[in-house]
Amino acid sequence: MPKYPLALQQLISSLKMLPGVGSKTAERFAFHLLTWPNEMLEKLGEHVTSVKEKIGTCPQCHCLKDQAACDFCDNSRRNSSLLCIISSPKDAYAIEETHVYNGLYHVLGGLLSPLDGRTLQELNLPHLLKRIATLQIREVIVALDSTLEGDATALYLKEQLSKLDIPVSRLALGLPMGSPLEYVDGGTLSRALTGRHIY
Amino acid sequence: MPKYPLALQQLISSLKMLPGVGSKTAERFAFHLLTWPNEMLEKLGEHVTSVKEKIGTCPQCHCLKDQAACDFCDNSRRNSSLLCIISSPKDAYAIEETHVYNGLYHVLGGLLSPLDGRTLQELNLPHLLKRIATLQIREVIVALDSTLEGDATALYLKEQLSKLDIPVSRLALGLPMGSPLEYVDGGTLSRALTGRHIY
Repeated sequence: MPKYPLALQQLISSLKMLPGVGSKTAERFAFHLLTWPNEMLEKLGEHVTSVKEKIGTCPQCHCLKDQAACDFCDNSRRNSSLLCIISSPKDAYAIEETHVYNGLYHVLGGLLSPLDGRTLQELNLPHLLKRIATLQIREVIVALDSTLEGDATALYLKEQLSKLDIPVSRLALGLPMGSPLEYVDGGTLSRALTGRHIY
Repeated sequence: MPKYPLALQQLISSLKMLPGVGSKTAERFAFHLLTWPNEMLEKLGEHVTSVKEKIGTCPQCHCLKDQAACDFCDNSRRNSSLLCIISSPKDAYAIEETHVYNGLYHVLGGLLSPLDGRTLQELNLPHLLKRIATLQIREVIVALDSTLEGDATALYLKEQLSKLDIPVSRLALGLPMGSPLEYVDGGTLSRALTGRHIY
């Protein structure tokens, strides 16, 4: 039975490494790429190859940045007494889109997950504590995933940060917007009940 | 509001050109690519850039091929009296996987679709007729999509090929395997009824 030409097979196996992309989708992508004009293929190839070189990480907050200064650390335009702890650089963009937060960020770069080999060392707590002291932060917001790993990391951070004399808050847990009660899972509903507020 | 670094934005817009990939998926792919080691990124970039150079098209059947001879045209291993007409090179691999066809292929390269500017010229009928004559084909199988464009093209091919004195067949239309009747659409069900067979 004839197989795909070698170059196509290689492209398909590379594309299969993307998240959520299985054989069928990778094949679909690859055959679609064959219909692209050469200059578009070169552009995509160049963007893929060079993306990591061209993007830097801010040494302070670990957010992504161009070669210029970090947009997220620009004290002149942001409230520098608030610090929001997030697990990955992508989360900063999601929070910025809400337009309700204007403080600084701190990217942990991962969550505690002993099974995946992510331990306390990787959170680099000393760097976080030093930033909180240097920036004279007045409130720390822990904005981590509401998953097992996120909960474990948040609990650890709460314990460590409670030694400082500043409020440490965590994102509210409750019903997502627009969700009918009957479709909400039990865990979420019980957190929404526990966290109810008088209005 | 800080935006994605330029290189990331460019990567996201390139990835958005893939079929079925919107902004959210492209962003997910891009942030995932940032976690890849450099050599994997270079490999993917290289595969994307060079895939079209490395893959040829058989001048006879228009299937994809490596630089070597065309696997699909190898008369020694295939029944060279059958010709299967398909719209794109990908269809040949799908048909090969069924293991019920061992004849030759002919890729049209598209279907009639006046709205998209695909007209009779693009089907290159003279080349098809010449191949049928040269190869002394005994049956032509029209294996086109069961869509409006596929139906129109199949009808046109039937008219043109009926002048030759060989049988021209089309793929059966009916229930897909494993589908409960209640979920099958009316059009499919009516074709399955019309095409019913005594067993």
